[in-house]
Amino acid sequence: MASAETAETEPENHSACLVQLRNPHVARMKEDILYHFNLSTSTHDLPAMFGDVKFVCVGGSPSRMQAFIKYVSSELGLGLPGEDHPNICVGTDRYAMFKAGPVLSVSHGMGIPSIAIMLHELLKLLHHARCSGVTAIRIGTSGGIGLEPGSVVITRQAVDACFRPEFEQVVLGRRVVRGTQLDAQLAHELLQCSADLSDFRTVLGDTMCTSDFYEGQGRLDGALCSYTEADKQEYLRAARAAGVRNIEMESSVFAAMCRACGLPAAVVCVTVLDRLEGDQVSSPHEVLAEFQQRPQRLVGHFIKKRLAAA
Amino acid sequence: MASAETAETEPENHSACLVQLRNPHVARMKEDILYHFNLSTSTHDLPAMFGDVKFVCVGGSPSRMQAFIKYVSSELGLGLPGEDHPNICVGTDRYAMFKAGPVLSVSHGMGIPSIAIMLHELLKLLHHARCSGVTAIRIGTSGGIGLEPGSVVITRQAVDACFRPEFEQVVLGRRVVRGTQLDAQLAHELLQCSADLSDFRTVLGDTMCTSDFYEGQGRLDGALCSYTEADKQEYLRAARAAGVRNIEMESSVFAAMCRACGLPAAVVCVTVLDRLEGDQVSSPHEVLAEFQQRPQRLVGHFIKKRLAAA
Repeated sequence: MASAETAETEPENHSACLVQLRNPHVARMKEDILYHFNLSTSTHDLPAMFGDVKFVCVGGSPSRMQAFIKYVSSELGLGLPGEDHPNICVGTDRYAMFKAGPVLSVSHGMGIPSIAIMLHELLKLLHHARCSGVTAIRIGTSGGIGLEPGSVVITRQAVDACFRPEFEQVVLGRRVVRGTQLDAQLAHELLQCSADLSDFRTVLGDTMCTSDFYEGQGRLDGALCSYTEADKQEYLRAARAAGVRNIEMESSVFAAMCRACGLPAAVVCVTVLDRLEGDQVSSPHEVLAEFQQRPQRLVGHFIKKRLAAA
Repeated sequence: MASAETAETEPENHSACLVQLRNPHVARMKEDILYHFNLSTSTHDLPAMFGDVKFVCVGGSPSRMQAFIKYVSSELGLGLPGEDHPNICVGTDRYAMFKAGPVLSVSHGMGIPSIAIMLHELLKLLHHARCSGVTAIRIGTSGGIGLEPGSVVITRQAVDACFRPEFEQVVLGRRVVRGTQLDAQLAHELLQCSADLSDFRTVLGDTMCTSDFYEGQGRLDGALCSYTEADKQEYLRAARAAGVRNIEMESSVFAAMCRACGLPAAVVCVTVLDRLEGDQVSSPHEVLAEFQQRPQRLVGHFIKKRLAAA
């Protein structure tokens, strides 16, 4: 049934540090319309617009990714204070994209299909722009398991709802399975950055990536639920015992696609609640707003440190 | 492995026409925070805000759902011409929600997980607001199979990437399968509305719902692709032979969840290209804009007719 595509997990020519598409058809296309970005190779000079990109940061919410580019631009001393960063994807509201120097910030919506569409077009954009040495980081929110809310989790590997480090997809009606490991060196570098900052707890752990927020994560507060609190606790405790520290909805395909195309990738998510204690996200708005800044501060520091070392 | 939940496909008390949650825990909650809408039972008077809703229309893009409420409001002679319809979900950019009289218009982003989060919270909202006799319609875009671009497809049933009328989900690590039939009478009523308008072609057919836009729909133009044009053609032609007329990314969970909670539901999508002819969406902007208005015009006419008959 499921076939492991080992070839896809070993990109050729990794040493060149270019973004490697895994699709021979693209080279033969006269024009490539990146439909959900409202960009195209025939109407936009992608190498001029994006050729200097070294850090791609992605997250669910457009306004959060706009806040991130503002923050990182100010942290890196790029541009003038208060300078506006216009949305590059004008004319579409599918995704929002912002750029400051070598940093690209892109929203991806919620769930595997939404981030997958964005990643297909982002990887092609980076390829067409002839970018090299790009690092990809997802910054997001998640539910923690047995962690104080506000803790940040750096993902070792993404696992599915059965705790397997796999991303399964249906291609031409057949199941294809890809690996979901993330870059170990990058994860440790980010962990060190959190130690430098030392203003919130950060742990390294596995992240469970589900296709649903309610039943798919064992919540008792959706429109549908056919199990008990005890069933839920048993499932979440089994996840914790298997190494899972938090749950979100995009990491597996992000890990699998970045890996296939030779991009070192990391996932840095803050936990907005402890799922062993409840299901509803009920912290006050200002507490949640501060929590959501933590991955941004961590990744901002990482980029600053990397650029200083270059 | 997969277990059919037949009980879930026969909502109790359908005759009362109330929105039936399939979760006994909700009745015991003191407060219900609809997190991704930024609404809550303790801070908002949901029956006063939403108690008169009879038609819920959902679609991927926030701006398109705003355009729809403006259009339908003008068509139904509700409010003043040019009147603003503020976004009810202020303080979040996950979803956008607009209301005009008995019509609620809500965006759901792209893909099954994104629309599923919205539907869990929407079904709870309608339940808390004690709405009755609600009809749910998804209006969207899709890729057609063997249809002239601009044709509209009214979905008979949603099928998965193996052409089965099933929505499969993982709950507490176990596969659960739900049915994806849509309301046959509603589909025929909508087909009649298209005949009334007689300004574009509309067909009744099965809709394939996939979890990916590129490899998951047999496209050759993604960042990853390991098959040939011939493989793609074989797959799409098999889909057509199985009754599939268009492909999108939300219909299966929309059908399954509305059915479970006793809401008559329909899916009305325009096709923006014929997938037998290509993969890229390359029609000019103004052509696509007119295509996207077709489901809106059809559903606007349907609502007007229903209200006139009431």
